[in-house]
Amino acid sequence: MSDIINSLNWRYATKAYDHSKKISEKDINELLEAMRLSPSSFGLQPWKFFLIENKELREKIKEKAWNQPQVTDASHLIVICAKTDVSEDYIKEFIKDTANIRGIPKESLKGYEEMMIGFRKGKTKEEIAEWSKRQAYIPLGILLQSASMKKIDATPMEGFSPQGVDEILNLKEKGFTSVVLCALGYRSDSDLTSKYKKVRHSFEKIIERK
Amino acid sequence: MSDIINSLNWRYATKAYDHSKKISEKDINELLEAMRLSPSSFGLQPWKFFLIENKELREKIKEKAWNQPQVTDASHLIVICAKTDVSEDYIKEFIKDTANIRGIPKESLKGYEEMMIGFRKGKTKEEIAEWSKRQAYIPLGILLQSASMKKIDATPMEGFSPQGVDEILNLKEKGFTSVVLCALGYRSDSDLTSKYKKVRHSFEKIIERK
Repeated sequence: MSDIINSLNWRYATKAYDHSKKISEKDINELLEAMRLSPSSFGLQPWKFFLIENKELREKIKEKAWNQPQVTDASHLIVICAKTDVSEDYIKEFIKDTANIRGIPKESLKGYEEMMIGFRKGKTKEEIAEWSKRQAYIPLGILLQSASMKKIDATPMEGFSPQGVDEILNLKEKGFTSVVLCALGYRSDSDLTSKYKKVRHSFEKIIERK
Repeated sequence: MSDIINSLNWRYATKAYDHSKKISEKDINELLEAMRLSPSSFGLQPWKFFLIENKELREKIKEKAWNQPQVTDASHLIVICAKTDVSEDYIKEFIKDTANIRGIPKESLKGYEEMMIGFRKGKTKEEIAEWSKRQAYIPLGILLQSASMKKIDATPMEGFSPQGVDEILNLKEKGFTSVVLCALGYRSDSDLTSKYKKVRHSFEKIIERK
């Protein structure tokens, strides 16, 4: 089997972490860089990632996350956040960045800009917030796969109060909301769930060829 | 740089495909297997993936996707679909599968089952449909990353009429809705966009350490 498949089979939602093992700076930066490079609709990257090591802050977040021990016990915690709106100003700034990075005139991107502004206008604020949250699951997928390929354990968590975490990180005033938490580190030998067989729908059940 | 970062830098939303190059059966099966192994909230996998080679079907889908040429020109097309609801029956079936796969009594999973049923009951049908769509972006991220590591090109597409594609694939009666399309194949030498510099927010802008 390939590395990709082996790694995905190796990973699981880790329940207990080995407190004594920290992820190296090099590895954590590689995971964050993979997230930064994630694709998104129009390339708009409507997200922000918090890397939290601070124990006090993690205790506070844990209280808003059903006291799941992974929040504080893992080596690191990432909070994946989504923009609550995509404004015309944000789109224009993105076009400016694109022109700068590619060394082309802004005017040559007019059609692209108008398409994105039209997309924004065609949706309600709630629809855009939802669209933005969906995008956040792409870097989540990439984070989980990248970690698995580096034999770093992870626990993605939706079970928390976004409002509570938003308050702790002052996200509302920054125009973001927390979408998913991900603990990262190394599994404890005592975590028996690592021995459980993975449960997945059969190939036949969820894949249809036409 | 690592393989992971190199691959993510190598990939881009491919605009033109080389018609003459087909993805091998071995490779396409590996990509589908990676998607099948994707993590999801509670492990519920509220999704289905259609792999479409049939040219006629792809012509029909293209009409519902702003006539984007990648839909028909790429080697393969994957339609990622989300369940429109997660019923109590579905949860119970999933618990039965889990007990079977792990060789444990169903009763030992009672707490897990009740947690999921409670989660479902705490949400409206619209909220569950939205939750389900978000999950679909995890296998999308894993598909895009896996393809990049295998030097297979991809074009994720949100620009299509879900209603139109749902009708073509009879998804409504099956309890699914189309969420994102992904063309897969090999870039054409004539695709100049492959030479464009990637545009991403800076590390400093989107990553905050605490």
